[in-house]
Amino acid sequence: METPFLVLDRTKAEANIARLRTHLTALGGTLRPHVKTAKSVEVARLLFDGGTGPITVSTLAEAEAFAAAGFTDILYAVGIAPGKLPRAAALRQRGVDLVVLLDSVEQAIAAAAASVPALLEVDCDGHRGGILPGDPVAGEIARVLGDGLRGVLAHAGESYFAEGPAALTAAAEGERRAAVRVAEDLRAAGHEVPVVSVGSTPTAHFAGNLDGVTEVRAGNFVFFDLVMAGIGVCEVADLALSVETTVIGHRRDKGWLLTDGGWMALSRDRGTAAQRVDQGYGLVTDLGGVPYPGVVMTGASQEHGILTARPGAVLPDLPVGARVRILPNHACATAAQFDEYHLLGTDEVWPRVRGW
Amino acid sequence: METPFLVLDRTKAEANIARLRTHLTALGGTLRPHVKTAKSVEVARLLFDGGTGPITVSTLAEAEAFAAAGFTDILYAVGIAPGKLPRAAALRQRGVDLVVLLDSVEQAIAAAAASVPALLEVDCDGHRGGILPGDPVAGEIARVLGDGLRGVLAHAGESYFAEGPAALTAAAEGERRAAVRVAEDLRAAGHEVPVVSVGSTPTAHFAGNLDGVTEVRAGNFVFFDLVMAGIGVCEVADLALSVETTVIGHRRDKGWLLTDGGWMALSRDRGTAAQRVDQGYGLVTDLGGVPYPGVVMTGASQEHGILTARPGAVLPDLPVGARVRILPNHACATAAQFDEYHLLGTDEVWPRVRGW
Repeated sequence: METPFLVLDRTKAEANIARLRTHLTALGGTLRPHVKTAKSVEVARLLFDGGTGPITVSTLAEAEAFAAAGFTDILYAVGIAPGKLPRAAALRQRGVDLVVLLDSVEQAIAAAAASVPALLEVDCDGHRGGILPGDPVAGEIARVLGDGLRGVLAHAGESYFAEGPAALTAAAEGERRAAVRVAEDLRAAGHEVPVVSVGSTPTAHFAGNLDGVTEVRAGNFVFFDLVMAGIGVCEVADLALSVETTVIGHRRDKGWLLTDGGWMALSRDRGTAAQRVDQGYGLVTDLGGVPYPGVVMTGASQEHGILTARPGAVLPDLPVGARVRILPNHACATAAQFDEYHLLGTDEVWPRVRGW
Repeated sequence: METPFLVLDRTKAEANIARLRTHLTALGGTLRPHVKTAKSVEVARLLFDGGTGPITVSTLAEAEAFAAAGFTDILYAVGIAPGKLPRAAALRQRGVDLVVLLDSVEQAIAAAAASVPALLEVDCDGHRGGILPGDPVAGEIARVLGDGLRGVLAHAGESYFAEGPAALTAAAEGERRAAVRVAEDLRAAGHEVPVVSVGSTPTAHFAGNLDGVTEVRAGNFVFFDLVMAGIGVCEVADLALSVETTVIGHRRDKGWLLTDGGWMALSRDRGTAAQRVDQGYGLVTDLGGVPYPGVVMTGASQEHGILTARPGAVLPDLPVGARVRILPNHACATAAQFDEYHLLGTDEVWPRVRGW
């Protein structure tokens, strides 16, 4: 295999999956994993012991690809653009229980006209869309949707910027409380609200209580990444995804190793830049997955990476042609730069879904 | 067409191409465009009035795709990983004059063994790889390459951080002088140095003198982007590439419009963050390509964009389902998120080359 390519450590991914399953089982929670990170049918099957189950998607292209692979319970968790409803309805006509997301009367009118059921998005932390708990528009939307109202959804997007157990647990509780509050208000007004959906990788791991919640969404956790390690949701040793690159040059005068893995491979995601420890474009490991202490990918051109050692650390003396792996800031963004996963220690290749 | 998708304004691209061609013709320069930005055979043909010509590539996948389309004079301008030489040699055996790039004796030994000719990379500004002018290793590499030495190459990567005509002209002159200096040193030592290759989009436009240069490389200029506009290489009105997105929600309490174009569509590139004017993830225009004054895409989730108005500006009152376009920070990175271009005002779709 020529570099750069995307490496998936299946053993670590399975351990990450088992860990969240154990945590949610103890709380009585049902997982509806978000497949937007892996965008891989094979990875999704790992989540269901080889079978299928309820999933969350971020594009209709994912919905169609997973439906073709036998996944029939699908939540499309991005506010619906009315122009996409015919494609959603076509999936439903093929027997897929596709549910969309919305937060306005205009969207509800369009979804009802297309006979596509929906969850009402609730804003729990000001991160992006959703209605605020207590906003009377919830009742209006519910009336417009009628039987098409499946329930409510909250996503604590701000939890990615929380750090440490106390802040993460508070984010999880805020997410739960906002979703349950809107569900209860709707029920008090006579609406049926079968689904109360919450989740994000940080809050799913730090939820202490799922009272009133019917399902938990999380996606990133299968791979984890340096952003998740930075806020304390996992350890660097848990990261299941990396990019294999080749050393293509030295700048000993500058203390640099150059590789053939640039931003086209790692993505431009610099999610750790705002964290306590900025990990550049990623941490550098050997082919056994062991980090070179203090060695960071600090620079990226389109097809060049620059590796440097932090003060006091030592840059490994690797010849041109030697290979290293880079643990990424953000697994969703880095994986999206590739069309397939190469499974560590095997010849297996798992394809990714691409596009919209 | 469902959003998000990538829009190419062919008229603007052709004007950008004509502008650089006119400038280089006046200086007596030959253009070897870098196809890494567009990665499109059809866009490359625009550069050669419908025909083919000398090109620069950033991956062997590009080299193979362009060779299949009739481009036979190809420079692969990323320091060669020895493991990639068999694939480069295979292209040469099919009649393609593929030349690689290197800056070390180890790489030269490998290239010579594979009978693949090479340019010697010269560092003109400390940006990434290359030997420094005056470094005696140039002579060693030339001796190892023998007849395989095609010439020298410099790339003023730091010119992307210059701003204004004086700084950009100085970057161009520094790039030219470094390349010519190493070429002259090698000639003085008895080596033939037919090629002296320089270039980047900023320096190609601001070069005042190409004495001693045989070819100029540039790639981004076909599309341009907000980073290039920010340093004064083009105007915002010259930008030929944009992403069409749909409004999917409002947060009037926050002054936000939400769209279905997130970082999966725009990329995570925040290249203007370090410039005088931070353009967020991009500037927002109507479907005629006219910017909404002061309206910026300031936030991005995977499939969500957040549009806000700068202080004093007014967010347009667009309903759910309305469409806008986003002018990106970095055309290379944004285009890479898509598999095809949709040509503005036509039904034409031009594919992109992907992978390595």
